[in-house]
Amino acid sequence: MTEFGIGVDLGGTNLRAAAIDRDGNLLDKPINVDTNYLGGREAVIGDIVAAVNRLKVQFEGSRLAGVGIGVPGFIRLREGFITNSNNLPYLENFPVRDDIERRLGTPIILENDANAAALGETWMGAGKEVDDLVLLTLGTGVGGGIILDGKVLHGALGMAGELGHLTIDPNGPPCGCGNNGCLEKIASATAVESMAYLMSLGDNLTSRDVYHLAAGGNIKAQRIFQQMGRALGIAIANLINTFNFPLYLLSGGMLPAWDYFAPSMLEEVSRRSFTYRNSQTRIEQAKLGNLAGLYGAAYLPLQNQALHSR
Amino acid sequence: MTEFGIGVDLGGTNLRAAAIDRDGNLLDKPINVDTNYLGGREAVIGDIVAAVNRLKVQFEGSRLAGVGIGVPGFIRLREGFITNSNNLPYLENFPVRDDIERRLGTPIILENDANAAALGETWMGAGKEVDDLVLLTLGTGVGGGIILDGKVLHGALGMAGELGHLTIDPNGPPCGCGNNGCLEKIASATAVESMAYLMSLGDNLTSRDVYHLAAGGNIKAQRIFQQMGRALGIAIANLINTFNFPLYLLSGGMLPAWDYFAPSMLEEVSRRSFTYRNSQTRIEQAKLGNLAGLYGAAYLPLQNQALHSR
Repeated sequence: MTEFGIGVDLGGTNLRAAAIDRDGNLLDKPINVDTNYLGGREAVIGDIVAAVNRLKVQFEGSRLAGVGIGVPGFIRLREGFITNSNNLPYLENFPVRDDIERRLGTPIILENDANAAALGETWMGAGKEVDDLVLLTLGTGVGGGIILDGKVLHGALGMAGELGHLTIDPNGPPCGCGNNGCLEKIASATAVESMAYLMSLGDNLTSRDVYHLAAGGNIKAQRIFQQMGRALGIAIANLINTFNFPLYLLSGGMLPAWDYFAPSMLEEVSRRSFTYRNSQTRIEQAKLGNLAGLYGAAYLPLQNQALHSR
Repeated sequence: MTEFGIGVDLGGTNLRAAAIDRDGNLLDKPINVDTNYLGGREAVIGDIVAAVNRLKVQFEGSRLAGVGIGVPGFIRLREGFITNSNNLPYLENFPVRDDIERRLGTPIILENDANAAALGETWMGAGKEVDDLVLLTLGTGVGGGIILDGKVLHGALGMAGELGHLTIDPNGPPCGCGNNGCLEKIASATAVESMAYLMSLGDNLTSRDVYHLAAGGNIKAQRIFQQMGRALGIAIANLINTFNFPLYLLSGGMLPAWDYFAPSMLEEVSRRSFTYRNSQTRIEQAKLGNLAGLYGAAYLPLQNQALHSR
């Protein structure tokens, strides 16, 4: 009998869920629901429970190892709480894990979305050949996930890997976290849009617009991506000097701009990390796109057992 | 029969060695030799072998688990090589571990000196209550050691924890490693001396002189330590955002200046790390002084067996 996990990815605009077996096969195409986020806690939790139940029924002939849920925000692992989730404030400081577990009668593992994506890439994506990697997700913000020995590095409370808030420029733009010059104030979609505004590239340009301008040869737009690349390079050099891992991955909505930010990124890393220059460290694009979080979430319950059976 | 390890600490100016038993008791006062570093490889390796042999003979009634040697520089763990050791260039790219092992007939574990100090503090010092910590050693340079789950984090090749080369100020002073604005260019004894010179505090002042000036009320000297504190604060905030460990320790020759750098350090950490403000993260002085490296080195061979016997 096939054993499988159910992964849930609670994204910024929609909720996805998928059943994935121990070998990494997606058992059907993922469920994708436009969640009524404005509906509040009951609506979102109801959607999660409904999606998981649909998959449980659909695959009731197989053994369900458990359910992993990737959510944006800090996770307090032991308590199963979410704290500081900008998109889902009504889920904060509520026993999300225990509540869903009770409704489903199935073990639930909560995880930060970037951690889940990092785990997914390690399991079935660009990190299949390694046990240790760092993933940076370049979207509206910048998230981070650190995989050590094939498992998510959590730290004391589960708040490790908040790499979007690494200080890159001590006197840089202010961040909502209270800091100045956080990575995500220079290397996220939002940052690219702010820079475009400040450089008078145009009003209300999206990061996609800025990308098209850069691709069309606009020097100012290209400079914005160079600046983004430089910030990423400083962050990745620091991560390499800290971890000496073999692989650093980038993913997220800004990845298509790779050709415009990667050259300055790699130049900075090379200048700022002796270790990079003296080891076979790879800096690459992630491979699973927006499925990474689903893979990682589904793998969470499978991983515990996989470890035992080794 | 007591089981013990022998720790060797190959420092900048002298060589020390000690026998320490499984419970962390120093079996006698450490051997301390002014090594003739100018004598080259044979002289240094000869001194190590002689010191270890003295201890082997002295404690031949007890069971020797092995010998750990802490050395400055990058260690290539698998090969047992040292690379890029400023103080001991003649030990580079030579099979140090295998050579000493052959001469002693005892298993040898090589380790970076800051990693050994971090392990020592975790075993018998300021980190006894935790399994995860980061240590920064503030001496001529700045070293780093990361302890995860009670063991040194090595990364792919053993080069993890090069925290003295974290970029703090992207446009800061140039470093020998090729980067600009490395932590150790702002927060080491050498950096304090450079800043004193640049601020015309006096010619040829040692970091100790600058400390005495600060303690005597000299505003410029105090500002130098504030700048050092700010750099440390940025680095530690980044480490907290990365690891979410419960404890960060500082050690080394600059530690007596704690009162002059700690206030600005803690202010920066608080401003730059949301996680610090929202968890019980401690930033403290290490406790074992210059014995930390000896404890850590002696613990290396004991640790492997301790793990098995748990």
